Amino acid sequence: MKQLADYPTVALDDAASEILMLDQTLLPGELKLLRLSKQEDIWEAINVLRVRGAPAIGVTAAYALYLAAKACPEEDPAAFEAAVQKAADYLATSRPTAVNLFWALDRMTRAAKGNRGRSVQELKALLHEEAVAINDENTQMCLAIGEHGLTLLKPGMGLLTHCNAGRLGTVEYGTVTAPMYLGHERGYGFRVFCDETRPLLQGARLTAFELSAAGLDATVLCDNMSSALMQTGQVDAVLVGCDRVAANGDTANKIGTSLLAIAANHYGVPVYVLGPTSTIDVKTPTGKEIPIEQRPGEEVTELWYEKRMAPEGVGVFNPAFDVTPAGLISGIVTERGVLRPPYTESIAALGL
Amino acid sequence: MKQLADYPTVALDDAASEILMLDQTLLPGELKLLRLSKQEDIWEAINVLRVRGAPAIGVTAAYALYLAAKACPEEDPAAFEAAVQKAADYLATSRPTAVNLFWALDRMTRAAKGNRGRSVQELKALLHEEAVAINDENTQMCLAIGEHGLTLLKPGMGLLTHCNAGRLGTVEYGTVTAPMYLGHERGYGFRVFCDETRPLLQGARLTAFELSAAGLDATVLCDNMSSALMQTGQVDAVLVGCDRVAANGDTANKIGTSLLAIAANHYGVPVYVLGPTSTIDVKTPTGKEIPIEQRPGEEVTELWYEKRMAPEGVGVFNPAFDVTPAGLISGIVTERGVLRPPYTESIAALGL
Repeated sequence: MKQLADYPTVALDDAASEILMLDQTLLPGELKLLRLSKQEDIWEAINVLRVRGAPAIGVTAAYALYLAAKACPEEDPAAFEAAVQKAADYLATSRPTAVNLFWALDRMTRAAKGNRGRSVQELKALLHEEAVAINDENTQMCLAIGEHGLTLLKPGMGLLTHCNAGRLGTVEYGTVTAPMYLGHERGYGFRVFCDETRPLLQGARLTAFELSAAGLDATVLCDNMSSALMQTGQVDAVLVGCDRVAANGDTANKIGTSLLAIAANHYGVPVYVLGPTSTIDVKTPTGKEIPIEQRPGEEVTELWYEKRMAPEGVGVFNPAFDVTPAGLISGIVTERGVLRPPYTESIAALGL
Repeated sequence: MKQLADYPTVALDDAASEILMLDQTLLPGELKLLRLSKQEDIWEAINVLRVRGAPAIGVTAAYALYLAAKACPEEDPAAFEAAVQKAADYLATSRPTAVNLFWALDRMTRAAKGNRGRSVQELKALLHEEAVAINDENTQMCLAIGEHGLTLLKPGMGLLTHCNAGRLGTVEYGTVTAPMYLGHERGYGFRVFCDETRPLLQGARLTAFELSAAGLDATVLCDNMSSALMQTGQVDAVLVGCDRVAANGDTANKIGTSLLAIAANHYGVPVYVLGPTSTIDVKTPTGKEIPIEQRPGEEVTELWYEKRMAPEGVGVFNPAFDVTPAGLISGIVTERGVLRPPYTESIAALGL
């Protein structure tokens, strides 16, 4: 019987002109591999979170744009470039907050625009190379984040995490989970606590699933239990991902992250944000400028649109993200090292 | 068609020797009235939260003990008293944390013990009177809490609450909801935000249901969204209930309350605990001495035991309550007025 490890988060089948994707909305109950070729289907998969997590969305968008370019019938390079830009603009509307999506699409279109004078055939090959490079660099990035993150942790620690920035949110290793996986390989014996992460339960369905499938000690808790858990003294560090980091270190991440960070600070538990430098948006000065996606109320009031959990007609507040102020963050772990406060300086020093 | 308002939270049908009870585990989808006569069935109803909320549990336990006494075949007053005590001891095991349960049972058994010399027939009548008095005083208590609570609030305020300490958790008016209902009657135009309250979703299923059924403006949010909501400036006060208040003001309430209180303090939003003085346990010096009920992991990993939401074999942390330190609480609203810090003094002054 196939196990979780047998399924790719996202992969390119170039011969078939398809993106392979594990449908994460069905986890942990069902392991279903999707084969997507239409741009609309890939857009929908990103939009409804069949694939989610900033790095995985970036790789998916890169593959998708390559497939759009590959299928483009234009023979004139200028018309081809315009068609690629149009396809990129369309894909960019699938999720409004994830800067990694825009970053990957921008990198792809720049690969085309930076090679004017080449034939359409050559440009298609270049876009293939670029998408594959985005994927491969992504894995190297995760490993580097894992190594840097591990320097902050000690064997036997209890780690509390929120949502999924695991291998299911990247492609391999994950970002937040990278030090957990590397520590596990080295016998660190971490105990990992996973916020279930309402409304879509990525922590329970994905993080606890991928960690326990890999043999780590994983415990699920409801999001409102983190204070009670920290009261027991079992949490040594909080590790969370990021969807966008502003130039001052303010961090947009899955809704609930700021609440967790406030509680961790109350209990003196360090909060580490883990993510690639591509998630840092130096053009966004502070968290106030990060747009927060509001999602459909049915995500909260109906479990997977099956069973009503709240009365009809009631109002719903359902932001996808919240912003954790830089002052609550002990360190930002990137593939280039651990950034420390003041972040305005440590981020500026990266020269992004 | 029958509406929520047509169903009692709990009521005594003395002629039928039955307790009438709305099965709250089925809300908001189904309105089902239970008729319970067996002690085991009443015990189970309390244990699995068909009836919940400290005051409602107290009234239920009082009615249940009256029914046990009524059915007792003993004719010797001493044997009768022993049988009543045995029935009380059994009912007391249905929920380990709710001091109101013990309080109501204690008051009932004292009514018997304080009237030695009476006939069994007379004692049964006294126990009936006592149970009815517990119910009636409960409603008066809720109204008084409502009036005292309302002095802390202003028209147009946004109020954030957790779990259900509403009329479904008491019998009428509720405790936390009493100022909301009274304010609504007086045109205060409150906007009420209801934490959904995982794992059993009492906030979404019960509080939002009873408030919107009564015409109030109710909005549901996931428990992890309270920080994001407070960031928007829409919350003027946090109102929560209590399952047990220690002599120093430390308060055990539904899991997640301490997390909410930490966040509210972070944002400068006042936190008010509302509950009857019967919930204050002066024999418990601080929150450290309050036993915390651990509940089955399936409450977290399976929605109403129907659909698996987390991988098999994963660990689960599922405490029913947490303790909010007195230092995070702006005021404790009782039927006798608003207690202010230092609570060790204001509680002692009650002479409980």
